[in-house]
Amino acid sequence: MIGEIIAIGDELTSGRILNTNSRFAAGHLFTAGHEIVAMATVGDTAVEIGSALKRALNRADFVIVIGGLGPTSDDCTNEAVSLALDRPATLHPEILEKIQPEPIDGPDREGHNLEKLAWLPAGAEVLKPESMMAGYLLVHAEKPLFFLPGIPHQMKDLMADRVIPRLALWQGGPARHVIQRVFKVFGLPETEINQKLLHLEEMDEKIRLGYYPVFPDVHVSLTVIDNNTRAAAREKFDHAAQTIQDTLADFIYGADDDSMATAVGRLLLARGKTLAVAESCTGGLIAHKLTSVSGSSDYFAGGVVAYSNGLKEHYLDVASELLEKFGAVSAPVARAMAGGIRRRTGTDIGVAVTGVAGPTGGSREKPVGTVYFGLAAEDKEETFKFHFTGNRRQVQEISAQTGLDLVRRLLLDKISKEK
Amino acid sequence: MIGEIIAIGDELTSGRILNTNSRFAAGHLFTAGHEIVAMATVGDTAVEIGSALKRALNRADFVIVIGGLGPTSDDCTNEAVSLALDRPATLHPEILEKIQPEPIDGPDREGHNLEKLAWLPAGAEVLKPESMMAGYLLVHAEKPLFFLPGIPHQMKDLMADRVIPRLALWQGGPARHVIQRVFKVFGLPETEINQKLLHLEEMDEKIRLGYYPVFPDVHVSLTVIDNNTRAAAREKFDHAAQTIQDTLADFIYGADDDSMATAVGRLLLARGKTLAVAESCTGGLIAHKLTSVSGSSDYFAGGVVAYSNGLKEHYLDVASELLEKFGAVSAPVARAMAGGIRRRTGTDIGVAVTGVAGPTGGSREKPVGTVYFGLAAEDKEETFKFHFTGNRRQVQEISAQTGLDLVRRLLLDKISKEK
Repeated sequence: MIGEIIAIGDELTSGRILNTNSRFAAGHLFTAGHEIVAMATVGDTAVEIGSALKRALNRADFVIVIGGLGPTSDDCTNEAVSLALDRPATLHPEILEKIQPEPIDGPDREGHNLEKLAWLPAGAEVLKPESMMAGYLLVHAEKPLFFLPGIPHQMKDLMADRVIPRLALWQGGPARHVIQRVFKVFGLPETEINQKLLHLEEMDEKIRLGYYPVFPDVHVSLTVIDNNTRAAAREKFDHAAQTIQDTLADFIYGADDDSMATAVGRLLLARGKTLAVAESCTGGLIAHKLTSVSGSSDYFAGGVVAYSNGLKEHYLDVASELLEKFGAVSAPVARAMAGGIRRRTGTDIGVAVTGVAGPTGGSREKPVGTVYFGLAAEDKEETFKFHFTGNRRQVQEISAQTGLDLVRRLLLDKISKEK
Repeated sequence: MIGEIIAIGDELTSGRILNTNSRFAAGHLFTAGHEIVAMATVGDTAVEIGSALKRALNRADFVIVIGGLGPTSDDCTNEAVSLALDRPATLHPEILEKIQPEPIDGPDREGHNLEKLAWLPAGAEVLKPESMMAGYLLVHAEKPLFFLPGIPHQMKDLMADRVIPRLALWQGGPARHVIQRVFKVFGLPETEINQKLLHLEEMDEKIRLGYYPVFPDVHVSLTVIDNNTRAAAREKFDHAAQTIQDTLADFIYGADDDSMATAVGRLLLARGKTLAVAESCTGGLIAHKLTSVSGSSDYFAGGVVAYSNGLKEHYLDVASELLEKFGAVSAPVARAMAGGIRRRTGTDIGVAVTGVAGPTGGSREKPVGTVYFGLAAEDKEETFKFHFTGNRRQVQEISAQTGLDLVRRLLLDKISKEK
């Protein structure tokens, strides 16, 4: 189906905020087999919103409208829809009940504002009535219009859980069998991945590959769309997926909802191993990634953010002579940190990282982006040196991901020495 | 002046690339006093580009078109302009000369492609003829249309060096003076902030407020637009800013580019104090936030991610009796963790957090979202209990922000006991 996306907000037209919502929506619609004919961004003005909506209805099969559904005075999407499509505001008592458990007795100002959330254009069907999220579907001129909140995580949730499935069921053309998987790749540049997979893409027009650099990873989406049978689509898909797996091998750490942290966690659980971390330049980011996974306490003991040399000595038993002789950013110190955290916490594996995240602190021998890693396990101690480019945030992010990747490769017994 | 921005490219409508160009252009135009009525994004299709251009010409005083000026086959902006505005392609020999120092002898494919760059719609004035950058100005229906390359650094260069100055000189309406600030607020819900500031918004139509929930914060933007003098705008702005400051008081932790971590860092530096953290349920997120700021090693020593009880005992001297009697998620343990990290690292302030991030691990007495904080300083030890709602990621995020906010309030001497 052909769709249009309309993003709403003065914060977008004034350039204060980057419009990541439209891009997210476009990407997901595209990989689900739809085509986005245009994307519009308008400010919080009812007239502009209304005319954008009418224009979209004229040329698209469906419309996604994002933003302006909140309770504050600048949110005016619902008002705009009521005016433009002649659908008077209608009270949804089930929403009101949730936001307003007590009946309103007087002119309670706060009540009035939140009550706004319960007034939707006539015909609106709330997308997730069981949640507190705004967002509804309106069928107008036999076309589905989805209105989603501008809060990114809510928009993403509704997009994946409601919009894509509803559109898939919408009457439109012959049956299409769509099978999709996103491969999560770390350690290979996008262009190299593209080169390696080019033959697959050129083989069959029903096989579509998408490359999405999501720093520091590259996500490769495989979509097979077949108008015949589901079995035909499945066969084609399985073959293509196997080709990708064989080609990119252990640069693929997971698929779909996996993150590097869930991939490492799954391996640790399967091997019955525990992990602790000693972080300098990543400053807690590795621990944060690991603990963002529910149930991580089963394999992750914790660690030390040894930002100062004092903490490296006190908590990790790094000898002060080592720090003096080689400097905190060095292979011997990385090795000592990894061994120290493993010994002190009694875990099976210790991983350590020390480097120059920048923008200051670099030198000629150890420029910004120089990062050493240490790995300590029962039978081995290894160190690795990398040189990353990017700003502080990027160096920290890719360093943390590399630290986790080294643990993953250790658990897979696919550790390769110094790069 | 009122403008419209059109971004062109299939990589945008398919969601493969984030549209940072439009945001950059909008931000610069906004601060230069212009208003962006709408932003459009269309794919590499001459018909769509043409109709977007005509629509923009109908409602805006100027138009910025970004992208599709390159030499490859999918770039078709110039063709679209020629068709839509009836301006036949015209050869610019001075461009051809630069890209083609040697005369073309045969049907050289590469030469043909590059030659495309020298054919522009009739009337085009190249913006930076001395450079190799694409980009031109076309005056149509007495309105300036700027065509800029999609390569971000070229677009930015031309935007700053050519577009903004040319627009400033363009005949068009009274001058507008725009002053803007974004207040970063933590600890108050969006609706309550809106209520408190409603009177300010209703006072003067030249004062515009925007409310943006950026979890777990709320950002409040103040914009004053005045058509008279800059001094008048400034006076109005200062008055409104002061009102916001007085109203929201210490719930405002910073402005514009500040984050909670930079605000805390600034205070620590000013007071000459050092900090260390002991994290359980936030799992390194507080340390990560602090160390994402360059120069944080001046006041942040590091800390311990004490995810397991063993690490709480070993690294923070939390007595095992305390853990057994009260449980790891408790005020006495939070207090002991804060005192422990402060003592063991020799810093001035220790902050600790222990709680149930969920989705598992909750109980009737301590449901998911129950989080205890400990603060230890030279002259005081305090604990705080909060109950947060949300998923794991949100509980961790708001807990980390609360931990930093408690340090900020301690440094401001505005700590308030248990909520």
